[in-house]
Amino acid sequence: MRRAETLEEIVKRRLLYWPSSEIYGGVGGFYDYGPLGVQLRRNIVEKWRKVFVLPYQDLIIEVETPIIMPEPVFKASGHLDHFTDYLVTCTKCGRKYRADHLVEEELAKRGLKISTEGMSASDLERLISEHKIVCPHCGGPLGRVETFNLLFKTTIGPYSENAGYLRPETAQGMFVAFPRLAEYVGRRHPFGVAQIGRVARNEISPRGGLMRLREFTQMEIELFFDPQNPKCPYFAEVESFEIPIVPEEFVAKGQTEPVYLTAREVVERGHANEWMAFFMALAAKFLKELGVPIERQKFLGKLPHERAHYSAKSYDQMVLTERFGWVEVSGHAYRTDYDLSGHSKFSSREMYLERRLSTPKEVEVVRLYPNPNAIRERYGDKIGEVIKAIKEHEGRVIEAFNRGMSEVALGEYVISRDMVYIKLEKRKTDLEKFIPHVVEPSFGLDRIMYVVLESAVVEEEGRVYLRLPPDIAPVKACILPIVKRADYVEIGRTLWRSLARQGFVVLYEDEGTIGSRYASCDEIGTPLAVTIDEKTPVDGTVTIRDRDTKRQVRVKLGDVVTFVSMVAGGASFDDAARALGAAPVQ
Amino acid sequence: MRRAETLEEIVKRRLLYWPSSEIYGGVGGFYDYGPLGVQLRRNIVEKWRKVFVLPYQDLIIEVETPIIMPEPVFKASGHLDHFTDYLVTCTKCGRKYRADHLVEEELAKRGLKISTEGMSASDLERLISEHKIVCPHCGGPLGRVETFNLLFKTTIGPYSENAGYLRPETAQGMFVAFPRLAEYVGRRHPFGVAQIGRVARNEISPRGGLMRLREFTQMEIELFFDPQNPKCPYFAEVESFEIPIVPEEFVAKGQTEPVYLTAREVVERGHANEWMAFFMALAAKFLKELGVPIERQKFLGKLPHERAHYSAKSYDQMVLTERFGWVEVSGHAYRTDYDLSGHSKFSSREMYLERRLSTPKEVEVVRLYPNPNAIRERYGDKIGEVIKAIKEHEGRVIEAFNRGMSEVALGEYVISRDMVYIKLEKRKTDLEKFIPHVVEPSFGLDRIMYVVLESAVVEEEGRVYLRLPPDIAPVKACILPIVKRADYVEIGRTLWRSLARQGFVVLYEDEGTIGSRYASCDEIGTPLAVTIDEKTPVDGTVTIRDRDTKRQVRVKLGDVVTFVSMVAGGASFDDAARALGAAPVQ
Repeated sequence: MRRAETLEEIVKRRLLYWPSSEIYGGVGGFYDYGPLGVQLRRNIVEKWRKVFVLPYQDLIIEVETPIIMPEPVFKASGHLDHFTDYLVTCTKCGRKYRADHLVEEELAKRGLKISTEGMSASDLERLISEHKIVCPHCGGPLGRVETFNLLFKTTIGPYSENAGYLRPETAQGMFVAFPRLAEYVGRRHPFGVAQIGRVARNEISPRGGLMRLREFTQMEIELFFDPQNPKCPYFAEVESFEIPIVPEEFVAKGQTEPVYLTAREVVERGHANEWMAFFMALAAKFLKELGVPIERQKFLGKLPHERAHYSAKSYDQMVLTERFGWVEVSGHAYRTDYDLSGHSKFSSREMYLERRLSTPKEVEVVRLYPNPNAIRERYGDKIGEVIKAIKEHEGRVIEAFNRGMSEVALGEYVISRDMVYIKLEKRKTDLEKFIPHVVEPSFGLDRIMYVVLESAVVEEEGRVYLRLPPDIAPVKACILPIVKRADYVEIGRTLWRSLARQGFVVLYEDEGTIGSRYASCDEIGTPLAVTIDEKTPVDGTVTIRDRDTKRQVRVKLGDVVTFVSMVAGGASFDDAARALGAAPVQ
Repeated sequence: MRRAETLEEIVKRRLLYWPSSEIYGGVGGFYDYGPLGVQLRRNIVEKWRKVFVLPYQDLIIEVETPIIMPEPVFKASGHLDHFTDYLVTCTKCGRKYRADHLVEEELAKRGLKISTEGMSASDLERLISEHKIVCPHCGGPLGRVETFNLLFKTTIGPYSENAGYLRPETAQGMFVAFPRLAEYVGRRHPFGVAQIGRVARNEISPRGGLMRLREFTQMEIELFFDPQNPKCPYFAEVESFEIPIVPEEFVAKGQTEPVYLTAREVVERGHANEWMAFFMALAAKFLKELGVPIERQKFLGKLPHERAHYSAKSYDQMVLTERFGWVEVSGHAYRTDYDLSGHSKFSSREMYLERRLSTPKEVEVVRLYPNPNAIRERYGDKIGEVIKAIKEHEGRVIEAFNRGMSEVALGEYVISRDMVYIKLEKRKTDLEKFIPHVVEPSFGLDRIMYVVLESAVVEEEGRVYLRLPPDIAPVKACILPIVKRADYVEIGRTLWRSLARQGFVVLYEDEGTIGSRYASCDEIGTPLAVTIDEKTPVDGTVTIRDRDTKRQVRVKLGDVVTFVSMVAGGASFDDAARALGAAPVQ
């Protein structure tokens, strides 16, 4: 646990994050991010956009939707019914536990290692009774195992019946807005929608620091495609990328070690369709570029009873950590048409795209025609608006009258059966409606931040540093006058200011020994340390030190901004030094 | 309303934003942002960081804290008691109204223009009864005017007594974390803390589109300073900047027109301290750089009864819009020590900084010393931990015993009176504790987005475009083959891809006439349109068109990325053209 412990000290000393509301004793599952944490998170988010969104912006668009959503959304999405954990309450002291975790932990204490994933309430009750598990706090008997819904509930507005919930995933905002999004892309497909934002899950008893939070940040894409054509036009870019994968069939046999298959092989062997394999390859590459080697990653297939209620196939991208073992950093789910069909049914709105047929076919279509006379009789001058409303809600009106209803309310207008003609017509068409299927890669920013930090810890030759990729490092450069002399200080502050005004996050420090200041830059992963020394006032040069090798080069003051900018943008220290003709310091 | 109407059409056609959960009939006060809206918002946020945070990053740090916070936070902050609006319910149909708005609107219908700002429930009841105001929906009599708390309430975890609330401002997360933040900056002062994030306010009946949302994004700074020294070290940068201000005293006399005072004059005439004037100057500059001229801005002083419960002085930065008249885009409040003192009292944690006295003084200090014998007797080996806990909570322990309590619980340890000695000692010190005062500039991103859009609308010579500053524009360039010819298309797509991979948001379009495609770029404010024409395959050049002047220059294909990058980074079209030796198109 060497790395994890070193990291913990750095996190505490440099205040990367800490439990929220500490002065009130804290609340489980909530963390604050300090200045360095915020920059690190922002850099990871920007990197994610650069890997998943910007290169494919002709297909993948970004949206931002609210955290609070009204009740019908979560009825339709299945979350009100299925987004639950098992809760068990001590009948003596009243303490509440997440039942599956309690059972696993109590049995582990007795040397029994079992997985409760996918177990039912009665399975858990059976284990509790068989193994005589009692309240670990007071020893009292445990009650029945109940389901506990993990949605945070609130009320929208002054009417108590208007329930709202905090979204447990950003996804629903994208499904609910599907008609608008399809309109935005001109109904072309495939297309994807990305969203980065906060979500909330009311965990029963969160533990494990950033691993299980009640409020956290997701980065998600919903990729909508024609199930008859799951081709990804950008697949060639990733097809030879090797993915460490444990396919579902292997998991079923108890295998946990990954095999290495190219994205192409993953598709050819039927482990995933092109879109899933595409995003899994990008996800592996993303984590790798964040400093997590492929050898500490795997994509673990989920068995049917382990999957979320909406998923027909799932892989969890796992990263091996010292502190928490394997942790899930992203989920890759084949959500099929589950969500769009659900929302279509609950909202009576069609949620479809159209595919072009190779040969036109004859179809029977139910058409709705307004009866102007009947409409004018009831609504007079408003006939235009009524006809518009009927056209807009054509599907709903047809369905209602076919079900035998005598009236349909459309906003303020009530449409009676005599106001419309419903006809069955034959028509030739080369367009066919379909509800798109969805592949979803979903990333947890907070967990990714943790694994990136833990992976970055290096201890060598008595020094400790975070080997963060320079584009991810929270601070790009530290400006350090070698001693606190008035002229050095002035040069240093001026340099600091010009970097700060260019938008770089940079630190200036003139207190303490140069060694302790280097150490202080290193432990937060700052790639560059710029030192103002006795030569600076004479020849206008400074030294720049590479975090990883401790090598230094001498650079003109006027080139420092370019040097920092190159390294922050992805160039290596050596490349930047070469480009600027910087001389090694002997 | 010409501009506002034109904007509304663009917003609808290009889907910048739309009401959330439309398929379920919508929920008031929630909006979704489409792809162009998201980019525009992101650019405004980055601009805000560049104006308010990055140049001052030696003083102002960024944090990120949760949206859900536990109940004690809002007891201490005063929001549970004071963050309310007046609600009135129709006794016949049960409809609920925001009482002050209802009274204003109903009286306005009768030609009476009155402001209800700062009125009490009984004032409103008096007006309702005097003017015989009834339910506008059913004509029924209205009930009593009640207070309605605007916090969204939820429950954290499985215990129903653990109430939580969605933060109505990002500020409280920063106040509650004050001890950590002070530790981060090494207790130096002044220092500021910035946060950008979502907040929620359960408005009774939100209207006015983006103007009054139930969920929105704030960008806030809490600046902590010594009230004996409200100097801003960066004040010189803004002191001659002219601020359009309506000081409180003028407002009291009914004046609404601003006077133009430099930031220095604002301070010298006692209208604000340096920190407030500093942020007001930056705020005016920020909006100006977003395209809102100073002449359509003013800082309106708030009278005591108009201010938030925590504020000793407030200015609202107002912008004149066509659609909504004057709207508040930022609030500048002098929160004094209201919040830190409140949290200190409720949490029993000291929230202080220290100032250095010019001459040391003798002070009486209450000191706490552990009594090792008594502690060991009760806690044996754990003595070290107990002593640590006592030290950490020194203030709380002293206070409890001084209040005559016989025991204090510190986590799992119970400290009885005999375990500590409390002594009054005299000591010479040149340090003096103080609770810092706070100045807070607080920006509403959604409103700013609206005013920036409305300000950008230009209609001239039969064309419509958004004159958005290029760094704010959602799309930086459109790539347009003049006709859809295979070689043009390939060059265009390759160029599009290289820009997209550099991280620029760019569009490619090869359908439609070139004129309609220019118009389509213009109406979303795209600063540059790159055209591939008959010369391109021959000499490897393209034309780049300036949105505002429609002038075109001819540029080498290899220079396009640099051209886009310069303009997106703030260079003018002419400067970029000159730097790249681009020839004007005849």
